[in-house]
Amino acid sequence: MKTVSELGERALIERITARLSFPPWVIVGPGDDAAVLAPERGSLEVLTTDAQVEAVHFDRRFVPPDAIGHRALAVNLSDLAAMGARPRAALLSLVLPDAMEADAIDGMLDGLLALAAAHRVSLVGGNISRSPGPLVIDVTAIGAVGPRRVLTRAGARPGDDVYVTGTIGDGLAGLKSLQSKVGVRRAEARYLRPEPRVRAGMLLGRNRAATACVDLSDGLADGVRRLAEASHVGILLDGEALPIPEDVREWHLAQGRDPVMAALAGGDDYELLFTSPKRFAGRMRSARSSLGDLPITRIGVVTKGHRVSVSAGGRERDVPEGFQHFT
Amino acid sequence: MKTVSELGERALIERITARLSFPPWVIVGPGDDAAVLAPERGSLEVLTTDAQVEAVHFDRRFVPPDAIGHRALAVNLSDLAAMGARPRAALLSLVLPDAMEADAIDGMLDGLLALAAAHRVSLVGGNISRSPGPLVIDVTAIGAVGPRRVLTRAGARPGDDVYVTGTIGDGLAGLKSLQSKVGVRRAEARYLRPEPRVRAGMLLGRNRAATACVDLSDGLADGVRRLAEASHVGILLDGEALPIPEDVREWHLAQGRDPVMAALAGGDDYELLFTSPKRFAGRMRSARSSLGDLPITRIGVVTKGHRVSVSAGGRERDVPEGFQHFT
Repeated sequence: MKTVSELGERALIERITARLSFPPWVIVGPGDDAAVLAPERGSLEVLTTDAQVEAVHFDRRFVPPDAIGHRALAVNLSDLAAMGARPRAALLSLVLPDAMEADAIDGMLDGLLALAAAHRVSLVGGNISRSPGPLVIDVTAIGAVGPRRVLTRAGARPGDDVYVTGTIGDGLAGLKSLQSKVGVRRAEARYLRPEPRVRAGMLLGRNRAATACVDLSDGLADGVRRLAEASHVGILLDGEALPIPEDVREWHLAQGRDPVMAALAGGDDYELLFTSPKRFAGRMRSARSSLGDLPITRIGVVTKGHRVSVSAGGRERDVPEGFQHFT
Repeated sequence: MKTVSELGERALIERITARLSFPPWVIVGPGDDAAVLAPERGSLEVLTTDAQVEAVHFDRRFVPPDAIGHRALAVNLSDLAAMGARPRAALLSLVLPDAMEADAIDGMLDGLLALAAAHRVSLVGGNISRSPGPLVIDVTAIGAVGPRRVLTRAGARPGDDVYVTGTIGDGLAGLKSLQSKVGVRRAEARYLRPEPRVRAGMLLGRNRAATACVDLSDGLADGVRRLAEASHVGILLDGEALPIPEDVREWHLAQGRDPVMAALAGGDDYELLFTSPKRFAGRMRSARSSLGDLPITRIGVVTKGHRVSVSAGGRERDVPEGFQHFT
C-alpha cells in the first residue's frame, strides 16, 4: 500500500475527486482555484469551520479512518443544525503525515462521504498539505437558512423550558470504553459516529418552536452556560430529568462518580440544547411528531438573573465551567 | 507573556473577536455555533480553503507572526482573485502549539486583519484547537461573483494570448534570501507579504477581458500546465518575455541557473496567469488602465494540441512538471 508521500498531491486529489458527484447548483466544483455555488434563493448563508486534530480530538489507535472522516464532518453539521440551517456543501482541508497510507485516506473519505450523502452535502473543494506532525482534518460546512428561521444562542427568555435532543453521556462513556475498556461498550459506536441533529435543528427553526439553540460538542455544562450567557438569562436544570442512558448511569456510580455531574462535564455528544416557551407547546408537539423516535427531553427552565445551576437530590449546585481546550 | 495554554481557549477567542467589526450583511458573527451572512443579491458564492503549515509553508525562525497571518489570508484571496470574485468574508481555523505566546497570536492577527481590512474582508468565524505539533493556520475565504463574470481555468482557446500580472521570481528569491542570505534582499518583503491580485481578477472578470485564469501559488510551470489541461489546449511561452526582475535574473545567473527555468519552477508568487484573445484588445486596454502601474505582460500564446513548452534562445523545451506537495 502506497503512502501519501509516494502517491503525491495530484494523485491524492484525483483519488478523492473521482468519487464525487454534484447537483446543478455547484457551478464550479473541485479542480479550479475555488468552488462556485449558486446560492439558495431567499436564504441566508451559514458557515462554520472545525478542525479535528490527531492526539487532541481523536486517537488513531482506536478511532478507525472512516470514523475520523465521519466525525470531522459531523461536528460541523452539528454546528449548522444548531443554527437551524440545512447543510449544502463542505470544503475539506487535509494536513497529512508523509507516512500515512492511501488506504487510510480512502477510509476517511468513506466515512465523510457516507455522512455527506445521508445529508445531501456536496464536497465542493478543499486542499491537501503535508504535516510534519499530527493528522489534521479541517472541514468548513456551508448551509442555508430562511431569514426568519435562524436559531441563535441569544433568544431564550425567563420562563422558557429547556430541552435536549437524544441522550447525554455516550460520548464520554464510549471514549473511555475505547481508551481503557472501563466505559460502556454500547456507547462506543455513538462516540465514533455521532449523528448530527440536522433534521431536528431544521424543524425547530422552520416551525419556530425554539427561541434559542446550541450544540453540545463541548459538553452540556458548556452548552448551558453559553446559551445562558448569550441570552442574558439564568438556567436551572433538573438533574433528575437528564436523559442519561441507564448503562452510563450505572457505570458512573460504579466508578464512584455522580452521574449528573459527569453528564454535565462530558463532551462529544453532539445533541442540541434549546429553549421553548410554554405557549409554543403546539409547535413543539408538531416538531416531536415529525422527529419520530428521537427523544426530546425537558431538562430545565430559563430563569431571571445569571445563575446557571442544577438541582438534584434536593440540592441546587452551580453548573461547573465547561471544557476548554488549553486548560 | 502568557502562552496559549495559560490563556485558555475562551480568552484567546475573546482576544480575537474584540478586534473585529462587521458590516450589516453579517447577520450572526463569531460567538454562535456558526456565522450567518446575507448573500449578495444576484451573485454566486465563491469558496476556497488553504492551510499554512509550520515547517512546510513557513519557517517561524524568519517569518514573523504578522507575515504568517498575512500569507494565510493572501493565499486564499489569490484563489478568489483567480475566479474573478470579490472577497467578502473569511473563517479562521487555528491549530496552536501549547507553548505559543499570546504575542505571536496577536501578531498573526495584526497581519491577517490588516490585509482583510485592505480588501474589506470580514472575519466572521473560526475555531481554535490545540496542536501537539506544528502551528497550522487554515483559512476559508468566501467571495461573490456575477453569474457571467466567473473566471475558470477552462476557457482558453488556441490563438489567445497568455498574460501574467506583476513579476515572477520574487517568491523564491525572497525565501532563499531569508533562509540563507543567498537570494535577493529586495524580494524578501514580497515573499513575506505577497499582494493578492484581487483587483486585477475582479476587473478581468467584470469586463470579460480574460477567457481563463489561474493563480500562480504553486509556480508558473504548475499554473500554465493546469490552465492548459483544464482548457484542453497547449501553451507556448516566450521565455524571453517573462517579467523576471533584473536582480532575480542576475542572482540565478550567478548561481549557474537558467533564469527562465528557475522562474518556471519557483513558487509563492501569487500572480494571475490569464488568457485573452486578440479581439478583446479593447477590454485589455481598459483593464490595464484601471490597474494603474500593475504590470501585465504578454508571455505566450495558446496553441492547438496539448504541448506546454517554452521557447528561449532559439530552443523550445517542455515546461517542467509543477511543484507538488509530498514529492
